[in-house]
Amino acid sequence: MSFALRLRVYWEDTDAGGIVFYANYLKFMERARTEWLRSMGIAQQRLRDETGGIFVVTETQLKYLRPARLDDELLVTADLRQAGSASLIIDQRVLLVSPHAPESPANANDDVLCRGTIRIGWVQADTLRPARMPQSLAGTLERHADSMSQPLQS
Amino acid sequence: MSFALRLRVYWEDTDAGGIVFYANYLKFMERARTEWLRSMGIAQQRLRDETGGIFVVTETQLKYLRPARLDDELLVTADLRQAGSASLIIDQRVLLVSPHAPESPANANDDVLCRGTIRIGWVQADTLRPARMPQSLAGTLERHADSMSQPLQS
Amino acid sequence: MSFALRLRVYWEDTDAGGIVFYANYLKFMERARTEWLRSMGIAQQRLRDETGGIFVVTETQLKYLRPARLDDELLVTADLRQAGSASLIIDQRVLLVSPHAPESPANANDDVLCRGTIRIGWVQADTLRPARMPQSLAGTLERHADSMSQPLQS
Amino acid sequence: MSFALRLRVYWEDTDAGGIVFYANYLKFMERARTEWLRSMGIAQQRLRDETGGIFVVTETQLKYLRPARLDDELLVTADLRQAGSASLIIDQRVLLVSPHAPESPANANDDVLCRGTIRIGWVQADTLRPARMPQSLAGTLERHADSMSQPLQS
Repeated sequence: MSFALRLRVYWEDTDAGGIVFYANYLKFMERARTEWLRSMGIAQQRLRDETGGIFVVTETQLKYLRPARLDDELLVTADLRQAGSASLIIDQRVLLVSPHAPESPANANDDVLCRGTIRIGWVQADTLRPARMPQSLAGTLERHADSMSQPLQS
Repeated sequence: MSFALRLRVYWEDTDAGGIVFYANYLKFMERARTEWLRSMGIAQQRLRDETGGIFVVTETQLKYLRPARLDDELLVTADLRQAGSASLIIDQRVLLVSPHAPESPANANDDVLCRGTIRIGWVQADTLRPARMPQSLAGTLERHADSMSQPLQS
Repeated sequence: MSFALRLRVYWEDTDAGGIVFYANYLKFMERARTEWLRSMGIAQQRLRDETGGIFVVTETQLKYLRPARLDDELLVTADLRQAGSASLIIDQRVLLVSPHAPESPANANDDVLCRGTIRIGWVQADTLRPARMPQSLAGTLERHADSMSQPLQS
Repeated sequence: MSFALRLRVYWEDTDAGGIVFYANYLKFMERARTEWLRSMGIAQQRLRDETGGIFVVTETQLKYLRPARLDDELLVTADLRQAGSASLIIDQRVLLVSPHAPESPANANDDVLCRGTIRIGWVQADTLRPARMPQSLAGTLERHADSMSQPLQS
């Protein structure tokens, strides 16, 4: 039931350890959150132009389980865990889709490389002070949360 | 006739000027070069594992014509201009596909935001010394160059 | 008693919200950890050349309290909370030293902008498998930890 | 006679080739330009608050001669080549100060790793349209250029 974005590891994402630089998983997770919001019709630049508000990240917790490498194909998920009037908590995972080494066992697919929990808050873009989300935004997220809270969810 | 990769501008790509940070166009162009190579069956990590060589960028020239912004959708092209035995010269452009502002005139589409010329060299990964490209790699690029040098090209 | 590194916010660190992009605090914290290790005589590249091991980040927890902006001068601290035979836990803070706006009240100085806890593990660079730290490295960290655990600490 | 900024290579700057990712030299050069401007009393955030204008990069040309690695200490120079009423051309170099390998020959010091020429323009921050630099800014740069064009310069 998760939203998922597929992406590729490029040189820019790696470091001299030969693996994806850990800070870049935050970028991967944000791309997935952005596309997850877009899938609900929420475009952040337009939202800012119309309401004067933006989302900011206020807390992040990440566990790095296994490394990703150049050319790996990843799946980045986003699951809304909690939605308040001024903030959201989102659970995210980064999974390995296609390991670059062809000899990898089939069960290496869908390996979780990284898990994260991200808290984002809604603020006024000019003052960066916390604010209540616009009604339309809150409503969209609420309807989404309802559709997620089904028995099938896991 | 150009190879083209479509991508989206995320928060990570922008700076406090409200636009895409200029250094990040180099990342966009590399993603396109990587996918262009992949479209010819050339995967860089596998190539390194098999031949001990990697591509490195040795020269870049970029002109920034118009800015990209958050949520913009971009098209990044790659055209092989010249292929030698140890280096390549690639022309690249970044075009705006879908401006975030819906009121933008239709002719804003396909605007060139940035033009670049990138020279890459083939080196031994351990010593970083220039080397001749493996025969199979050179052959693939040559066949590609031939297929590009048609009258229809522009 | 904390180790502290002073650094400056540049365009590269900011995003279209006009503030430092949250993932970049992980970079700031790593710069401080690196200089903290260097202050003990631990240079990571040399250590890798000599022992075949590197540090990797295995867990991060960050709270973003207030934003930093272009031209801000920051102080990034590193405090060793716990040292095991194969991993370290380090507490870090990012403080605002000199707000760019001269009219800011004096008590804005030393504001904590971000707090983090970073867990790093010692691994073999080639396999990335966890390993015991070399004796000399462990000894250096232990002596450092002892010198920190004084009544004066806070 | 060049302005020069000293900086260190961290993990964040490197890629899986084991060297500094080429796009990051643009960041290093910008840090040097920013500190060069600051050395003349020009703080960009304050300038924007006061005049509504910002500098944007409009053209970059870089040659990568030799790679930098983790822990290397670099010297990044900035030399004003040309100052117009709405743009500047700045020559920059990245030099290796202290190679991490102690056995490197002494003459490895001051090696040029990268050369660049950067053109920056002055624009209105809200519209990003080119504009004439404020009188005080142009005057400061002109006085600086004069002081540079001495016989001693090289």
